[in-house]
Order: sequence, then C-alpha cells, then structure tokens
Amino acid sequence: MMGFMEAKKRKNSNNAIILIVCPDQPGLVAFISNFIHQHHGNIVYLDQHTDYETGTFLMRVEWQLDQFSLNRESLYKKLEELTPQFKMKFKLYFSDYSQRMAIMVSKYQHCLYDLLVRHALGEIDVEIPIILSNHDDLAKVAQHFNIPFEKIEVDPKNKALAEKKQIEILKKYQINLLVLARYMQILSEEFIDSFEHPIINIHHSFLPAFKGSKPYHQAYAKGVKIIGATSHYVTPELDAGPIIHQCVSQVSHLDQVEDLIRKGRDQETSALAYAVRMHTQHRILTYNNKTVVFT
Amino acid sequence: MMGFMEAKKRKNSNNAIILIVCPDQPGLVAFISNFIHQHHGNIVYLDQHTDYETGTFLMRVEWQLDQFSLNRESLYKKLEELTPQFKMKFKLYFSDYSQRMAIMVSKYQHCLYDLLVRHALGEIDVEIPIILSNHDDLAKVAQHFNIPFEKIEVDPKNKALAEKKQIEILKKYQINLLVLARYMQILSEEFIDSFEHPIINIHHSFLPAFKGSKPYHQAYAKGVKIIGATSHYVTPELDAGPIIHQCVSQVSHLDQVEDLIRKGRDQETSALAYAVRMHTQHRILTYNNKTVVFT
Amino acid sequence: MMGFMEAKKRKNSNNAIILIVCPDQPGLVAFISNFIHQHHGNIVYLDQHTDYETGTFLMRVEWQLDQFSLNRESLYKKLEELTPQFKMKFKLYFSDYSQRMAIMVSKYQHCLYDLLVRHALGEIDVEIPIILSNHDDLAKVAQHFNIPFEKIEVDPKNKALAEKKQIEILKKYQINLLVLARYMQILSEEFIDSFEHPIINIHHSFLPAFKGSKPYHQAYAKGVKIIGATSHYVTPELDAGPIIHQCVSQVSHLDQVEDLIRKGRDQETSALAYAVRMHTQHRILTYNNKTVVFT
Amino acid sequence: MMGFMEAKKRKNSNNAIILIVCPDQPGLVAFISNFIHQHHGNIVYLDQHTDYETGTFLMRVEWQLDQFSLNRESLYKKLEELTPQFKMKFKLYFSDYSQRMAIMVSKYQHCLYDLLVRHALGEIDVEIPIILSNHDDLAKVAQHFNIPFEKIEVDPKNKALAEKKQIEILKKYQINLLVLARYMQILSEEFIDSFEHPIINIHHSFLPAFKGSKPYHQAYAKGVKIIGATSHYVTPELDAGPIIHQCVSQVSHLDQVEDLIRKGRDQETSALAYAVRMHTQHRILTYNNKTVVFT
Repeated sequence: MMGFMEAKKRKNSNNAIILIVCPDQPGLVAFISNFIHQHHGNIVYLDQHTDYETGTFLMRVEWQLDQFSLNRESLYKKLEELTPQFKMKFKLYFSDYSQRMAIMVSKYQHCLYDLLVRHALGEIDVEIPIILSNHDDLAKVAQHFNIPFEKIEVDPKNKALAEKKQIEILKKYQINLLVLARYMQILSEEFIDSFEHPIINIHHSFLPAFKGSKPYHQAYAKGVKIIGATSHYVTPELDAGPIIHQCVSQVSHLDQVEDLIRKGRDQETSALAYAVRMHTQHRILTYNNKTVVFT
Repeated sequence: MMGFMEAKKRKNSNNAIILIVCPDQPGLVAFISNFIHQHHGNIVYLDQHTDYETGTFLMRVEWQLDQFSLNRESLYKKLEELTPQFKMKFKLYFSDYSQRMAIMVSKYQHCLYDLLVRHALGEIDVEIPIILSNHDDLAKVAQHFNIPFEKIEVDPKNKALAEKKQIEILKKYQINLLVLARYMQILSEEFIDSFEHPIINIHHSFLPAFKGSKPYHQAYAKGVKIIGATSHYVTPELDAGPIIHQCVSQVSHLDQVEDLIRKGRDQETSALAYAVRMHTQHRILTYNNKTVVFT
Repeated sequence: MMGFMEAKKRKNSNNAIILIVCPDQPGLVAFISNFIHQHHGNIVYLDQHTDYETGTFLMRVEWQLDQFSLNRESLYKKLEELTPQFKMKFKLYFSDYSQRMAIMVSKYQHCLYDLLVRHALGEIDVEIPIILSNHDDLAKVAQHFNIPFEKIEVDPKNKALAEKKQIEILKKYQINLLVLARYMQILSEEFIDSFEHPIINIHHSFLPAFKGSKPYHQAYAKGVKIIGATSHYVTPELDAGPIIHQCVSQVSHLDQVEDLIRKGRDQETSALAYAVRMHTQHRILTYNNKTVVFT
Repeated sequence: MMGFMEAKKRKNSNNAIILIVCPDQPGLVAFISNFIHQHHGNIVYLDQHTDYETGTFLMRVEWQLDQFSLNRESLYKKLEELTPQFKMKFKLYFSDYSQRMAIMVSKYQHCLYDLLVRHALGEIDVEIPIILSNHDDLAKVAQHFNIPFEKIEVDPKNKALAEKKQIEILKKYQINLLVLARYMQILSEEFIDSFEHPIINIHHSFLPAFKGSKPYHQAYAKGVKIIGATSHYVTPELDAGPIIHQCVSQVSHLDQVEDLIRKGRDQETSALAYAVRMHTQHRILTYNNKTVVFT
C-alpha cells in the first residue's frame, strides 16, 4: 500500500495521507496532529472513528507537504519508530503518485463504460494500465478508451492455469487495485492470496440478501419492492467480504426480471464507482470484516 | 372482504371498487368497463396488470355510483352471475363504508403514534375500534386518541388462551384488518386461521435479509450500509408473507446499533403507514405470495 | 407523431398504442376498450388520469394487433371518425416502427455516453441517425458507437444560419425526437417552431430553482443540501417547459462547486435517460404545461 | 450559547464540546488537540472543515471530562486567553447540561407530535419547558406530553404586543432554542433581534423554490416531479436563512394538491427533526449564510 516506491509521480498535488488503526487510547489525535504540525505540515483533512465494541481507533489524516520538513522516506521511518508505542498500524500514501488499477470484465458493458467515462472525467484518479477479460466482447470498449486489453479464456478445466496467467499480468503491470466490473467468474482463494492487493467486486443484490447467482431472479420470485447492488472487498468467502457501499432502487409489480436487471444496472454502476472512488482516495479502512469510509 | 353488509355507512363519497383476479384472456377490460358503463357508472380509476409468467390478470376499477342503475345487492349478484365465465375472483367494496382496523402493540410507541396521528389527519380512513396489547405501557396513548385499549397478557404458558381472547375481542369489534405495529409476539397459525381477515405486520429489516429477531443487531454485525423496514401480510411462515412496501435508510460506520434502531424507526413507520393506507384504499391484490399495489 | 407512415419497420413486437386527451365525461374507458375488443385487439396496457381541476381526461392504451381486424390505415380512419364526438385528440403509434432520435451536444460527454450505452443495451429503443454538435470534441464518441456526427459551429453572429442548417439536417434524417444532452446553446423560438417535433432538454438544477446559467454555482452560493436535475420538454420560454422527471442528490458543506458538478452529472444522466425512455415508449402526455407520465 | 451557567445538570454523560470558527491557518488541529490532551481530556469526536473560498476554518471537538484537569470555568477562561491569537470564535458546551427548547405552533399537529414523540424516545435530548401557540387547538397535545402550553393570540393589530408577550415567556423559561413547528405567523425583525437565540423553522418547500405562502399549490401549478421541505435558521429575510437540511419526495400527476400536502408532511417532520437533533447536539456552525453540519 505504501505507494511511494513502486508508483510514478503523477500530478501537482503534494499531500500525504495516513490511515491508522490501533487500540483506542487517549492522546492519539494530539500525537498525530502534533507530529505533523511540528514538522510544518498543514492538515487539510482529519477524521477519526472509535469502535467502542472492539475498542478500535481508526483515523485518516491528510496534510500538505509543501513546507513539510521530513522527506518521504524519513517520514516513513519516523512513523515506523513512533507508532509501535500505540500498537498502531499505518498506511502512508502520497497524492502525487497514482494507483494502478486493473479492471476484470466478462460480457456486461455497463460497469466498464461507467468506470471509464468517470476515469476520463477525472472522477476516478488512477492509472488503468490493463483490462482483463475471459471474453473478446469488450475489447473495442477498451480500445476506444486507449487501454490495453487482454483476453484469458477461463473454463472449469483450465481455471488454475488461467488464474496464474491473470496474476502474472497483474504483477507485470504493477497493479495495486483490482476491480471486478461484473466479472462472471469466481476468483479462487489462491488467486486472492497471491494477488496481495485489494479487490473490489460489485454484487448485483442488496447483500446479504440474494447471495450467489441470479439475484434479480431471486428478487423477482420473492416479490421485494426494493432491489439493490453492493460493492465490497473480495474475501475467500463468496459475496461476504466487507461491504463498501450499497445502492437501491424501488421496484413494483410492473417490473419483470428484465426490468430489475435494467434498474439494477444503474445501482451497480453507482455502487461500484463510489467504492472505487473512495478506495482510490484512501478513504476506506477495514476491520472486523466491515469498512469505515471517511467521506 | 365484501364490506357492505357488516360495516356502517360513513361518509359522502359514493364509489364502488372492484378488485379482480383471473386467468389472462382478451376482453377483460372491455367486459368490466362496459358492464359499468351500461349501468351508468362513471369510472374514476382503472388499473390492471398481467403477470405473464403465471398468466394472471389483476385489475382494480373504481366508479361513481351516483347514477348507477343497480343497487348494491343487485350489483353483487350480477357480478356473481357474470364472473364465472372468466374464472374471475372478485372483491367488491364501497367507499362510504369504513373498514374496522384493530392495532396490536407491545411497548414500542413510534408506529402506534404514527398510525394514530395519520388517522387523525385523515390519511388513514378507517375506524379503529380497539387497540390490543400484551402490556399496559401504551394505554395512555390509546386514551389520548380516544380509542379503547385492552391488555391481554401473553406468556409462553398461556399463549393459546391469550390468543383465544384476542380473537374474541377482534370478532366482537367486527375487525376486518389487523395491524401489528411492532407487536412483539409471534402469532400462531391457529390465530391466523381463525381471524380470517388480513393481518399486516411491520418487520424491522429489509426482508428477506435479517429475518427473525434483533435484525438491527444482525445488520450492525454484518456492516451493511443501508438498513430497511418491510411491511407485509402475515402468513404462517414467519416474516415470509407477501411484501407490501419497503423503506430504506443509509447508514455508516458512525451508526451504532442504537442509531440503526433510531433510523429504523422512521422506516418502520413509513413502510407500515403506506401499507395500511394502500390496503384500506383497496389497492392491494395478492397472488403467488407477492403483492400488486395499484397506486 | 403518427409514426406509421414515415418510419421503417423495426422489430417483431406488433402492438398499437394510443394516447388520448379530451374533456372528461362518462364512458370513455368503455368506448375505447370496446372499440379495441370488438376488433379483436387484446389490451395489454391501459392507464388513465383525470385532472379534475381542468376537467381533462388523459389515457394511454396499448393492444396486440395479431388478431386485430382493422389494418393500420383503417384503424386510423376509424379513430378519426369516432373521436370527434368526445372532442378527443389522439395520437396513434405502432410498436414495430422506430422513432428517429437526434442528439445535440456540445463538449460534455457524460449524457451522451449514458444515452448511447443505454441505446446499445436496448433500454432506449430508437434509431439514432445523427448526432449534432457545435464542437468537434465528441465526434469520436459518435464514431465509437457508429453514429454519424455533424459539427455545425454556432456563434452569436451566425446563429440563425447555423440553426437553419441544423433544421435541414434534422429534416433530412426524418428526426422526430430531438434530445439536448447538455447542448450549451439556447435554441431560438424559430428553431423550436420549425422543428415541429418534441425536444427534450436536461437542465442541471432542480427546477424551478436555479434557472439559467451556472446552476451549480447558484446552488453552492445558496448552501442548499440537495441538488437536482430536471428533464423537460423545450418551449420558447427558457427552462420553463413541461417537467418530465427530476432526480436529486444529497450534498453537504464538504461539496465544493466541482463536487456539485460531479454529483449533478449522475442526476443529469438519470433524469434525461428516464425522460427519453418514457417518451420513446409513448408514455408521456402534456397539457397545461405539465406532463402525465404513464409508467 | 455557553450553557453551563444558566442550565441545570441533567445526565451522566460528562463531555465538553467546542465549536470553533476562525481564519484558516496551519496548526489549528494540533493546537486544540494538544490543549485538550495536555489537560488529560480524551477526544471522542473531532471533525473540521475548511472553506477555501472564504479562508474559513470550522471545527467541532468533543472530549471526556472525567480526567480533565481544568474545571469548567478555568477551561472557559483558558480558551478566552488562548483563542485571540488565532482570531478564533468559540462556543463551549457541556453534555450534562440540557438545552431549553420552546416550540411554537399554530394548528398543524404533525410536526408537534413528531418532535414530542422523538423527545419521548430520547432522540431529541433537551428540556421542553413550554409550547406557545396562537390557537388553542394543540393544547391537548401539549398536555398529553405533560408540557406547559400558552396561547397568545396574534392578529395584525396586536402583533407587536403579542410578540412582546412571547418574548417575555421565552425569557421567563430561559429558552435558548426556539423551534417553529409550522407556526403560521411571520416573526418580525424585532422579535428575532430581541430573542437573541437561534430559531429553527420548517418551510414546506424545497427552498429556494417556492418561497412564501402556499408552496404546495405553487408546486402543483408548476408540475414538479419532486417536492421537498427545508429546515433553516430564521433570519429577518423571509425563508432565506441558512439551510440546515432538506428532504424530498417523488410526486406524479396522480398527486393532487392535497396529496402534495400529505406527502410533504412526512418531509417536513423529517427535515425539522433532523435539524433540531443536529442543533441540540451542537453539530451546526453557520457562516456566510450557510451551515456546516458535522455528522
């Protein structure tokens, strides 16, 4: 996560962002804000949350580096020295280095278009070096947005091999965020372990309702009056990782399954785009299989 | 359901409302609209829905009786004669006869206040002859709104007996709609069978997620980003009857269980009030464990 | 509007759709449903609305033509004969003939992409023979979706001439719906008159608040907590035509003008797409500078 | 605003809350968090916002006083000494002292019931020593909730006198928050000046649309598809004070003016209750005729 060594410099903004998790105790805000102020950093964002149930303190701080008296490596070392006294885990980011996000898709185009248009508009401020798919269909979308596209076929017999190839490509492109934009294959536990970076998925139901396949058909059969979509981090347990965002839409008896699918697409694109935006702005912390999203 | 014999005349509006379910076939709209027009009824509302999956036709028609050439009993008989050719099931209502709604509560006051204020404001246009509870707490709310209140204690040992008493009271007051406004006891199958009229419940989750008890605790543990409430008809299977309406509210990591409970209250009152309003306006048809709500 | 002469046959669906406006009077539903049934049409949709303030009756009926005993021209003639007795104005459409929709854009890409992706997905079921712009920027988007693109520069001095050219192109392509997808020029009254077909615009505020230019700046200055977008038919009075749909988004002090613009884009795409979808399904009637949208 | 002298001790919670506004400059967060930490206060909430347009820094900090080494008066004096160097304006509150909120009503009951039920449920944690009205109608509601009620008739001729009496009562009860819960009289500038404490109003439109009287009629005439309600602080200019919260509801051609009024009631109660809750938790700062609501 500590992006400053592997990523390339990108833009003029020159802020540091730190995400912190540690046991709750007095003085944490003062410690961090002092540390930054003593080294002439100007805090532009500070938000913190205490989960009293588990006694967990979580914080996001962002400050300007223009006058900051420590260089990036010194800052990192200093934090490594100072944080153990608080049992603090931290992640350090710099706003002028891009994240490298890969997108995996199958045949559905709506989430892909949505992400790429938002990327073009600057809403999602990352580099997208590669789009991976198990089908050819969306190659021309990637091409239109000038993003390399690679197809790796996946079938039950070759899945392990296909995943190995996928991982190789992700590593080759130094990807540190993988987004599953309605990718219709289940990633194996081995894939998740060996990728080592966060994976964001969009599930087309209001989780935990309607896990698994064909959630819109399940919703139709049940006669619900609201459908939804859920963006979440991927964990080995299917559709059970920390939820990042959920979007919903009212439906009625007038809506057939195909209408649920249509209305659901809008919720899928919104929930996924929000999750990607929040993640790439280093606004999300996870603990206890839940997320804290600092907005 | 055919309210015109047991209920008292109530107000100046003088409309007939018919709800129809039958196998789909051509000519149904023409048949009904003609029948009404030939007898000089002026249609003020007509909505219909065809469920193509099951081949089911559902319709709601409302017309003015001022010039109508059939009296109410003749109308009913005529419909009984004419509808079998279409395998049509119908329910006939008259807008000048009130429904008689009972409310069952325990200790939570928000849904009760909400229903009674809406009733006072004319949003819910029924008579409320009785409020039943297994506790004393809300007696003074009933009294404030001038509605009789009866407490029938329910504990595991006396439940069958208590339900028998409840049914007796509901029958005594000629209740034809029972609303469970956060009533914290599960009604037995025997109760549901012997009551013979619709029962509307509010469940404090976004069904089918978080059935059963303590749904807000379940939602908190799961880390969902939206919570909800579901109004539904009661069937013997717990929290599984036809869904009438669902309301949702965004939540975040800032919300503790008590905040979910607080935010949920607003969704519970809205979802329940909407269901009661739609039901008492004869706008809901059920089939296939789902509802059609003609708005 | 009567699409069956100028447009080409398109698809297998074979329904007729009639939109009706007339003074309210008894027997209208029976008259229409009978007429259709007598000629062996099977009604699949009927919705009607009475505006009691103005005594206006509005209706949308859709029926299957498979067994219908009148051909299209006879149907049209028959309706011309029968409707004057009710002072009925009607528009007749056939589901197997496409509408021809043109899109006008300037430099903003989000609404254009959104419409074209929805078109590709079948959500908006029309032909799009041409995209017109006063700039080159979006030519490549049109090209990607294989839609002809023409640039006609507009500046204050040549505006009348530019509009003349635009009208010529729209007529050449037999356009019967024009969609302004964040087109940044105000159409003159002459343009609107000579085009003769409906024009749908998206305004980036919650009308009637913040008419005119820079609505997000206005909203920011005012400190509103919700922003919106409004799709409406274009009339000569700026931003004052019949409102079709409105979408809103919560905002807070955290949102700078650029955040309002970003959040607003999602509302603009939704509100415009909904309006286009409803219009092209012949679901909208206008009267009294308001719309009735039969959903 | 500095509540600790005039108000009575209320509950076990023992936190201090400070609201700060000052010109933006480096070191503000560090200064405050240090100050609190050095005196052994444990920060449980810190949120801040910088308005870059005006160069304004705003912050809310809440900390536990259990181990705090300064007593309340010393704390206040210390802050008076230290804050001028930053040109800081601060307000200091203590969570164990209640605010004293008066409610003014006329004849509409929905907002009053809503506030009082929320108060009974603990959602709004204040004392309500008095309800004032220009009519008798709601006396029995006040009585039901055991709150003193005073009627002061207001007519055009006696308005100045009536307002003088109102002010006297508000002062007698040491009211420091006045809530207009659909109070149907316009308060004069003199009233606002002499009351000296915040006044929260609910306006039944989505401001700035439909200021003034009969907003639902205006909305109906305009044919909008969404209606709203706005809670705001009262300033001498009618319906133009800083907006606290806005709630909206979808409407359609089916909704008559009375339906807009009905649907609007739900938005009014929500928007008002939210504003009151946020204000009484000392979460709102105003500047530049706008609000910052720290949630």
